[in-house]
Amino acid sequence: MARDERGVTAQSADFAAWYNEVVVKAALVDRGPARGTMVIRPYGYRLWERLREELDRRIKDTGHENAYFPLFIPESFLAREAEHVDGFAPELAVVTHAGGKELEERLVVRPTSETIVGEMMAKWITSHRDLPLLLNQWSNVVRWELRPRMFLRTTEFLWQEGHTAHVDEADARRETLLAFGLYREVARDLAAMPVIAGEKTAGERFAGAVATYTIEGMMRDGRALQAGTSHYMGTNFASAFGIRYTGDAGREELCHTTSWGMSTRMIGGIVMTHGDDRGLVLPPRLAPYQVVVVPITRGGDTAVEQAADELAVRLRAAGIRTHVDARPQLSPGFKYNEWELRGVPIRLELGPRDLESGSAVLVERLGGRGKRAVPIDALPAVLPGVLDEFQDFLLARATAFRDEHTHVVGDWGDFAAAVGTGWALALHCGTSACEDEIKALTAATPRCVPLDGEQASGVCVRCGARSAYGKRVIFGRAY
Amino acid sequence: MARDERGVTAQSADFAAWYNEVVVKAALVDRGPARGTMVIRPYGYRLWERLREELDRRIKDTGHENAYFPLFIPESFLAREAEHVDGFAPELAVVTHAGGKELEERLVVRPTSETIVGEMMAKWITSHRDLPLLLNQWSNVVRWELRPRMFLRTTEFLWQEGHTAHVDEADARRETLLAFGLYREVARDLAAMPVIAGEKTAGERFAGAVATYTIEGMMRDGRALQAGTSHYMGTNFASAFGIRYTGDAGREELCHTTSWGMSTRMIGGIVMTHGDDRGLVLPPRLAPYQVVVVPITRGGDTAVEQAADELAVRLRAAGIRTHVDARPQLSPGFKYNEWELRGVPIRLELGPRDLESGSAVLVERLGGRGKRAVPIDALPAVLPGVLDEFQDFLLARATAFRDEHTHVVGDWGDFAAAVGTGWALALHCGTSACEDEIKALTAATPRCVPLDGEQASGVCVRCGARSAYGKRVIFGRAY
Repeated sequence: MARDERGVTAQSADFAAWYNEVVVKAALVDRGPARGTMVIRPYGYRLWERLREELDRRIKDTGHENAYFPLFIPESFLAREAEHVDGFAPELAVVTHAGGKELEERLVVRPTSETIVGEMMAKWITSHRDLPLLLNQWSNVVRWELRPRMFLRTTEFLWQEGHTAHVDEADARRETLLAFGLYREVARDLAAMPVIAGEKTAGERFAGAVATYTIEGMMRDGRALQAGTSHYMGTNFASAFGIRYTGDAGREELCHTTSWGMSTRMIGGIVMTHGDDRGLVLPPRLAPYQVVVVPITRGGDTAVEQAADELAVRLRAAGIRTHVDARPQLSPGFKYNEWELRGVPIRLELGPRDLESGSAVLVERLGGRGKRAVPIDALPAVLPGVLDEFQDFLLARATAFRDEHTHVVGDWGDFAAAVGTGWALALHCGTSACEDEIKALTAATPRCVPLDGEQASGVCVRCGARSAYGKRVIFGRAY
Repeated sequence: MARDERGVTAQSADFAAWYNEVVVKAALVDRGPARGTMVIRPYGYRLWERLREELDRRIKDTGHENAYFPLFIPESFLAREAEHVDGFAPELAVVTHAGGKELEERLVVRPTSETIVGEMMAKWITSHRDLPLLLNQWSNVVRWELRPRMFLRTTEFLWQEGHTAHVDEADARRETLLAFGLYREVARDLAAMPVIAGEKTAGERFAGAVATYTIEGMMRDGRALQAGTSHYMGTNFASAFGIRYTGDAGREELCHTTSWGMSTRMIGGIVMTHGDDRGLVLPPRLAPYQVVVVPITRGGDTAVEQAADELAVRLRAAGIRTHVDARPQLSPGFKYNEWELRGVPIRLELGPRDLESGSAVLVERLGGRGKRAVPIDALPAVLPGVLDEFQDFLLARATAFRDEHTHVVGDWGDFAAAVGTGWALALHCGTSACEDEIKALTAATPRCVPLDGEQASGVCVRCGARSAYGKRVIFGRAY
């Protein structure tokens, strides 16, 4: 079959090329003029809005409040927490001139907001009655990227960042896991990404954190995508910024803080978890359009067009996000290809003969059920179930793919083979030096120590030293 | 009465001090560490979210789609439209270093996005079938301010900016007025701000615009606040960025573009339109909390606290945004003052005796109806009406205030007196030189030529030359 202008490189032929083409051709995103920046187009932004609505509701339902902190952070703030400044220094964009003058103190464009939130929390918190302080922010952040890729690594991206302060370690650790649980839920239940939830090893922790938890998704090239992280900061930031409270006994104590973030990177994760040679496949719960109706008309058949519009009205009333593609200048076949490329879960074809028989042809983007005629009057009742099954199918397929590409390995040869196509579950000594060596040899890094991993111990798969963590670690190459 | 720590300077004594104190003490906002920046605290952010939800729905319902454009704009882009660069040059913040290096081309932090949107539109639009292109963005923007004031003029603020492209002037002008109509509706129906809608004079237009429409609210010190603007750009940006389409006849044409924005400045407008000596007064349709329930307990009366919680559950189920102030360490009187300062429209006091009689004491933040007992069971049905009446009362009061402080003036003495306490409706010659002279003498500027102003002509109130516009112009001192 000839490759038309909407066609994309086969996923199996060149995964990176497939990704770069599909996100642009599906009109999710476009390259911005400044290096490494992206323009999120309406179709991609609607996907982000859906994710944001769902996550925001969960964040609020668990007692957090949204706020907004400034984009510009005095450069000196970052230096106050030593690990933090080391972690972010190479990625900072700096404003040196404003209002036509050189600034006295350079301003960093936020790469993340722990420091500025810490400064404000120190001002707002005095008593244990002010705790816990549970804040969240939706914003843009900037991290200078040398090898930008749309959604995955861009100079600017959108995210939410939660920042909380607590009376003690127990409460802060509870919060860290609570936020983490929200990410896991959103990834699985909405994005149909069967992520592995676990703790990062010391070498992979967030700059300034005592513990970092991550959800890791497996992309269809076998690589891992870190899709959300939650950090317990101990008293590191509290001590750097003076976040203190007076306890019941009248003694001054340092707060324990957390932070956690999920970003537009998730869109890249959805693309690479479900997409195929024909383009995107979007999970119905997040898809901007769950159903596209294509009227099949030859020369302006107004009866068909009107029927398509009426059907859309009924589907929308049933809570189904529906789009009618009425563009007169394009053939039905062109539209089918385009909406497949753009990943719409269900297509309804509606022609004059369908109209006569009172039915529409239902085509699913994936799955073995093929085309089938469904009575138009039955669609508002039938489609929600079809969409749910489609969502379940995506999760099941991605879970099977992940499990097929994850191997428990005992020796180095098996390890290297496993991380060539997916993930290795291996015992590891826990030292950064050994992690570095593994990375140099295979490009694989420890993704996490899975929370629900079984107990296991023995010797390190690489160096033979005694294993750490009491369980296996997941290694894989990562985005 | 002694002024406690929550007290504020009287509005009548010093309006500017009152404003600065009330926005901070009501916990809407706090000063950010970098000069001129603000931290929007949860109470202020919730107000913004309410406004955003309402405006976003209207923007989408009228066929616009949200997108996201990059924060960083190559400096050369601004220079492409000459008036635009002149308009914004003094306010720009510039990134010169990133990733540890000096940049080859300096990046401007967006003060507004016409240029970068123009660049992308030129890429996306080829045919008349791509038009109209109706985009909107919710984002932060940066304009360096020498005299920052929270919400009104800050170095960074949040806003939405609509950007659209059209086949011709008629369609673009229709769009300019449509967006403008949304602002007028949101201001009146939600913020209870009886804004005057009109066109800016040439000297007050947006940089690069052919026509600028504005809504102007009158603050309680008689000054004007520009609360939303909509611009018809003609082909100025299309020509600077090459936004062209091929028409039906196959000829290449320039698009006509528009842009329009409303920002967190509206929060300042709400504060200054409705507030009084006791603090904020929030319109119920935007108030984060429409009702606060204060349980009156002495030493942990769990029956009362439980009744307050149950009442809140019932009110929330009736769609009323309700907060229970259960803080044990504070007296009811302290809480009453605090929620008055924070502008909650309705307070419900609930003590042991109220509970016995099955009623609560309802107190409105404003208006002449005083305290009254209302049966608890009746509250979910009664309150929506009380809130609507409160909303109507605010709009009526603000309208009366505006009308009392607006004078049709025929000579210069009356003009100068009118703009000392409010607005003057005057005939004007329409020249910038005369506008400048008026500003130098009185600090008043032409706010707008009201769309619904009556026809009038004669001689300029200042210079005696023939009047322009065919109607009177509103002059006032402005924020």
